[in-house]
Amino acid sequence: MRLLVVGSVAYDSVETAYGKVDRALGGSATFFAMASSLLAPTHVVAVVGEDFRPSDMARLQARGVDTSGIEVVPGETFRWGGVYSQHFETRTTLFTELNVFSDFSPRVPPQHRSAELVFLANIHPALQYEVLDQVEKPKFVALDTMNFWISGERDALVKVLGRIDALFLNDEEAYALSGVGNLLMAARAIQKMGPKTVVIKRGEHGAVLFHGDTIRHTPALLLDTVRDPTGAGDTFAGGFMGYLATQPEINVAALEGAMVMGTLAASVSVEDFSVDALERADLKSILSRQKTLQTLSLRAELDEAALLAR
Amino acid sequence: MRLLVVGSVAYDSVETAYGKVDRALGGSATFFAMASSLLAPTHVVAVVGEDFRPSDMARLQARGVDTSGIEVVPGETFRWGGVYSQHFETRTTLFTELNVFSDFSPRVPPQHRSAELVFLANIHPALQYEVLDQVEKPKFVALDTMNFWISGERDALVKVLGRIDALFLNDEEAYALSGVGNLLMAARAIQKMGPKTVVIKRGEHGAVLFHGDTIRHTPALLLDTVRDPTGAGDTFAGGFMGYLATQPEINVAALEGAMVMGTLAASVSVEDFSVDALERADLKSILSRQKTLQTLSLRAELDEAALLAR
Repeated sequence: MRLLVVGSVAYDSVETAYGKVDRALGGSATFFAMASSLLAPTHVVAVVGEDFRPSDMARLQARGVDTSGIEVVPGETFRWGGVYSQHFETRTTLFTELNVFSDFSPRVPPQHRSAELVFLANIHPALQYEVLDQVEKPKFVALDTMNFWISGERDALVKVLGRIDALFLNDEEAYALSGVGNLLMAARAIQKMGPKTVVIKRGEHGAVLFHGDTIRHTPALLLDTVRDPTGAGDTFAGGFMGYLATQPEINVAALEGAMVMGTLAASVSVEDFSVDALERADLKSILSRQKTLQTLSLRAELDEAALLAR
Repeated sequence: MRLLVVGSVAYDSVETAYGKVDRALGGSATFFAMASSLLAPTHVVAVVGEDFRPSDMARLQARGVDTSGIEVVPGETFRWGGVYSQHFETRTTLFTELNVFSDFSPRVPPQHRSAELVFLANIHPALQYEVLDQVEKPKFVALDTMNFWISGERDALVKVLGRIDALFLNDEEAYALSGVGNLLMAARAIQKMGPKTVVIKRGEHGAVLFHGDTIRHTPALLLDTVRDPTGAGDTFAGGFMGYLATQPEINVAALEGAMVMGTLAASVSVEDFSVDALERADLKSILSRQKTLQTLSLRAELDEAALLAR
């Protein structure tokens, strides 16, 4: 199945305890597509400025990403700058320059409207809604959002939630969106707002899948090198949706596999700045991490009868 | 096997978004023993003041805890007061009154010196060391500590680390103790300081076991009611050590079971203030949660060959 992603292609300036980069390739659609394209044909709809380096467009294309939906318009590319605390507990945004992104009105090229899977990366919920008006009956639509829209554009967000299958967000965003201060109850409340599937992204702590009454958790890999977590959430979503695109049916088993693939892809992404580590990795090297993830997840069954008989 | 725990028995004043309690039974040794005593004979060494309610001593005894090592001395019992933020992300200490605990010099009664397992709860590392001088060749010694000792009594702590088998701490403490800003590398550095086993307690995110080269993660249960996380770490340690005491040998399989039991016990503890929920629970009701934990842990194996053949 084919994937359509609508989001940002950007230039990031990032500083962590392990180094810094300036004007490095980033953006939600970029990270997503660098992961998803390993598994499924991926079409990106985004906008960049005339400063966008052809070499960066070539990097996406070399991965097999269909960039025909990336408009190049006069002006500068969306730029974001941030600095992380020593152990990545907090991230401080230094600047956000929307530039050409401020007038972004996503137009899905006709040849991409029949994509079976759609990922609406973190953009204004009204634009996410507009995308859904342009696509033809996708099998599965997932959406990412952030506190900025949850608090500032709640009505527009609630409207689009009624039309999607899956929502990706973190703990804090789940509390804010649901108004409920307990993750389990928050996820249940969000499911009632529309998405049958809710994925809570917990960074270094892994991710939790809520799908109907099913709840599944996967840890993140423990890595000996983490240099830059920027884009990890979008890379996770890329692995997740890319895997779903390989499956004949989107059921619990497919979603479980998607959680694993998202986790493996994100574990690669954070090992270097920008998309550098992701770009160096191929599907085989990413899949080779599966064994480590399986070993990490503790599988023990206590002998209830023996313990109670004591 | 028998368990010896040395730590605090205290009165806590706690406020969370879900209520508040004043002078409620607390302390590291209390939470630990209320969990461990469900699995193994548990001896507590601690000190309380003359204000300590006989009814609270009776609660420990009703659980089967051996309280003969709890000294009652003139003065007031150790008191701690704290308030949690809405989603339990942060905890602010309002007061700490050491009272009789300030002169605590643990004396292990002769009949308890042969306990096979020893838990040194979070007290001054020099006192933890003194306890080890009093016990006879325990099979397994675990220790809990905190940033206050890591930064303020580093030498004393490092000295005692050389004599223990297992250390319980959280991410932040692991960074501070090791001077390494990556959890995996921090745990490896701590193992070199003495304890072959390091357990990272991650609260609502679960726990990670490092034992030699083995690494295992277990998530925490997702609960529909969390009222007070105070004592969850000590309850986890109590379930962990209590389970080890039931096992013929302390190996990876036993430690994995201990992680599960610690997780289940802690999940009960946080559902109410003080030890109230823990006191209401018996071993059977705690073990009945095992199924939920097993279901929560995602088990999926991606078909590498099929994915690579695409």
